[in-house]
Amino acid sequence: MGTAAAGAAAAALERAPLAAGSRRRSGHARADVAVVGAGFAGLTAALKLVRAGRSVVVLEARNRVGGRAWNHELPGGEASERGAAFVGPTQNHILHLAKQFDVHKFATYDEGDNVYYADGSRTTYSDKTPTGIVPPDPTIDVDAAAVVTQLDQMAGQVPVDAPWEASSASDWDGQTLKHWLESNSSYSVNDRFRRLVAVATRPIFGAEARELSLLYTLFYIAASGNERNPGTFERNFSTRDGAQMWRFHGGTQRLAKRIAEALGDRVVLRSPVRRIVQHGNGVTIHSRRLEVHAKRVIVAIPPTLTGRIHYHPALPAERDHLVQRFPQGTLIKAAAVYGRPFWRDHGLTGQALSLNGPVNATFDDSPPDGSKGVVFGFIGGHEARRFRHMSKHERRAAVLSNFEAYFGPRARHPRDYFETDWTKQRWTRGCPVAIAGPGTLLAHGPAIRKPVRRIHWAGTETSTYWMGYMDGAVRSGKRAAAEVLDHL
Amino acid sequence: MGTAAAGAAAAALERAPLAAGSRRRSGHARADVAVVGAGFAGLTAALKLVRAGRSVVVLEARNRVGGRAWNHELPGGEASERGAAFVGPTQNHILHLAKQFDVHKFATYDEGDNVYYADGSRTTYSDKTPTGIVPPDPTIDVDAAAVVTQLDQMAGQVPVDAPWEASSASDWDGQTLKHWLESNSSYSVNDRFRRLVAVATRPIFGAEARELSLLYTLFYIAASGNERNPGTFERNFSTRDGAQMWRFHGGTQRLAKRIAEALGDRVVLRSPVRRIVQHGNGVTIHSRRLEVHAKRVIVAIPPTLTGRIHYHPALPAERDHLVQRFPQGTLIKAAAVYGRPFWRDHGLTGQALSLNGPVNATFDDSPPDGSKGVVFGFIGGHEARRFRHMSKHERRAAVLSNFEAYFGPRARHPRDYFETDWTKQRWTRGCPVAIAGPGTLLAHGPAIRKPVRRIHWAGTETSTYWMGYMDGAVRSGKRAAAEVLDHL
Repeated sequence: MGTAAAGAAAAALERAPLAAGSRRRSGHARADVAVVGAGFAGLTAALKLVRAGRSVVVLEARNRVGGRAWNHELPGGEASERGAAFVGPTQNHILHLAKQFDVHKFATYDEGDNVYYADGSRTTYSDKTPTGIVPPDPTIDVDAAAVVTQLDQMAGQVPVDAPWEASSASDWDGQTLKHWLESNSSYSVNDRFRRLVAVATRPIFGAEARELSLLYTLFYIAASGNERNPGTFERNFSTRDGAQMWRFHGGTQRLAKRIAEALGDRVVLRSPVRRIVQHGNGVTIHSRRLEVHAKRVIVAIPPTLTGRIHYHPALPAERDHLVQRFPQGTLIKAAAVYGRPFWRDHGLTGQALSLNGPVNATFDDSPPDGSKGVVFGFIGGHEARRFRHMSKHERRAAVLSNFEAYFGPRARHPRDYFETDWTKQRWTRGCPVAIAGPGTLLAHGPAIRKPVRRIHWAGTETSTYWMGYMDGAVRSGKRAAAEVLDHL
Repeated sequence: MGTAAAGAAAAALERAPLAAGSRRRSGHARADVAVVGAGFAGLTAALKLVRAGRSVVVLEARNRVGGRAWNHELPGGEASERGAAFVGPTQNHILHLAKQFDVHKFATYDEGDNVYYADGSRTTYSDKTPTGIVPPDPTIDVDAAAVVTQLDQMAGQVPVDAPWEASSASDWDGQTLKHWLESNSSYSVNDRFRRLVAVATRPIFGAEARELSLLYTLFYIAASGNERNPGTFERNFSTRDGAQMWRFHGGTQRLAKRIAEALGDRVVLRSPVRRIVQHGNGVTIHSRRLEVHAKRVIVAIPPTLTGRIHYHPALPAERDHLVQRFPQGTLIKAAAVYGRPFWRDHGLTGQALSLNGPVNATFDDSPPDGSKGVVFGFIGGHEARRFRHMSKHERRAAVLSNFEAYFGPRARHPRDYFETDWTKQRWTRGCPVAIAGPGTLLAHGPAIRKPVRRIHWAGTETSTYWMGYMDGAVRSGKRAAAEVLDHL
């Protein structure tokens, strides 16, 4: 961190009473608060607590920080992202954090046209029109626009802090998104429209429409905004005023690394937490490398992983049953690195929507100076499950064949190719977010953020806004830290 | 075990080479096969392996065997069941096992009429008529009979070993049972019928219709039979030729105890398994009291609990994602013990179906000689979640008020009252069975029984027939043991 702003942030932490109350001997540590997980949620919580003068230990299972934000280094010191890549308007919390740590944003490359691909036919179109992200296909565009409008309207009736209290919650949580589409669009008779829906649900949720509760989907849309700007579907899928509008210099993980750097040896890597024991006046967190005695603990990992820690006493049934029913989505990111972003020469943004997989959506993830060309594709839901069973060679060929169809023959010969199957990432176990089928939010939703005595829950899945995004993670970390501070 | 048959079974085990290859020193053991879980699945697997001359260690987390079969001792040495209570025709595997261990069955008390209760109105009726379990309510009985017939017919098209291969699997796994009912009955306009459906889904699945995939529901029905007798819905809910037809003398757990007795010190209690490590020529199972080195391991616990063991190497994504989406149902059993089964004097079976909860269904669970009267009630799904938030006093009052409404004022004054909230049972975490929402079987079903190198899966949820029942558990134990024997 060379700049003044980052220096100031680090200096502020130095002034915090790091040692006061935070004592460590071999294998043991004592702190006011233990934080489980060094993704954006855990790091933000730790930061807020340290700034409030509290001693903190952050236990991270991996040998890196960032969680679902994970850089892939490119030759020459630039970075592409294996996971979280974008930020956008209304995501004030992650943007503010980045500013503090001197990580600057830049616009996602967005000049020219997008590609729409369907069954061998390739069209280019601008998303800078009133129809926005809806691709130019007369067999589906009217339906797509109508469905988006209707979902946005319904989402407007879902309270982001308690979707289960929406007046139609019981109806909406009794059906899948697929079923709602069958009753409210040409879904059941229009094969193309059906496939277009998957083009949206696979990247956004890592799921098929049949796996998603309608209520959960509406909540997710409602959460794609902030206190002043109601969420919209389009914001999940757009470089224009949407969640894909900007990127971070040096990659998203750089911000996580800078926070961790400022937190210094408060962050302990390679130390998965196995057991959390609550007792009369504190909580003991047993991790691989360190046993931490704290007053409170913030668990900031995906819900399904919270269920794999052993708790004593056992967690209440409400919490346990929520976690049993709140799985991570199924998502793979595949990326190719080229000498330069050649698609730009042909007036293309690097964004493609395709009814033919495995890659149903792509984005330009090149370094800001365009000195290299990087395009990545999302492979989600059913396509991801199919893809996983191919050989390494077949997978690469399938992805490059998609890229060629979207961007031309040069796409077939990248300098580098890499995939990240998030379902295989042991300490995430699926991306981009936890999904809920019918009945889960209605029956178990209230347990999402409810503390269990000295245990507080963070992670993007616990956020009321921008759940599933880095902004939600940062929000959740702040909220959990505030809860803890209220009790210290 | 006093009798000849049980003696013979035990003697056969004695002759098995118990010591051969099964060596134990403090905290360590070596065996051909380790079995995780001493419910019926694990015990049956161990039995089969020992009989085949293999050395076995069974690791059980609790301080008792039986899993979801758990006796509540009554004064005088009789037993009532906190969990699994009944067996019935087509459940040949559990029946055969019981015979071997000299545990005799007797008929569930079934003389007289059942009670149907709806909004203050109480009717009695015989289920020994062609309409069977359908209660005598003109506002719902035609619909109920039609729905049962239609579900049975559809279930006939579901292969029990691969429900995801049914020709309509994609359609059926894209919707909830609730949604199917809305399109195929008066469900959406008939409040009583809607509540009657819950009367069925709560005891059978511990769930509301909105939580269940239609495909999963149809599979469950298809599985309620055996190779010669196709499954039917009614068999899940009937003392007449159904899964509630017989009980075991001494309670269902008695059979588990006898098997465990025969297995002797091969069964290690109070030893939850934390970690399973596969290596080149074997597998090491780390449990609280014992580290077992084995050639193969059979994991015979509910799916969601298999996900809480740490595996090295990590389980494949297919398996992990199935387990993330296969939660246990929500079920509480509440029972009252009376001086005698007084309802029998009034010509009642002790069975009630009620549209008004918390208890939606009851059964007579008295000892075979009728020397005491025991009636238990199922509280499931939404009712269970409501019930859990009442005080102990309120819960008891609510249950006894139901019992009084069904069986008269004497029901209000039991000698004993006890509840078993299976969601709070740490080593089960929900009953009666794991449930699947839309999309789970289609995307992840094939992982249910698929071994992961040296790890084999058992438990009633892995059974093709009588999943959710003791018979399914026994079947699964035999199947897993056979898989292992093929590799030893």
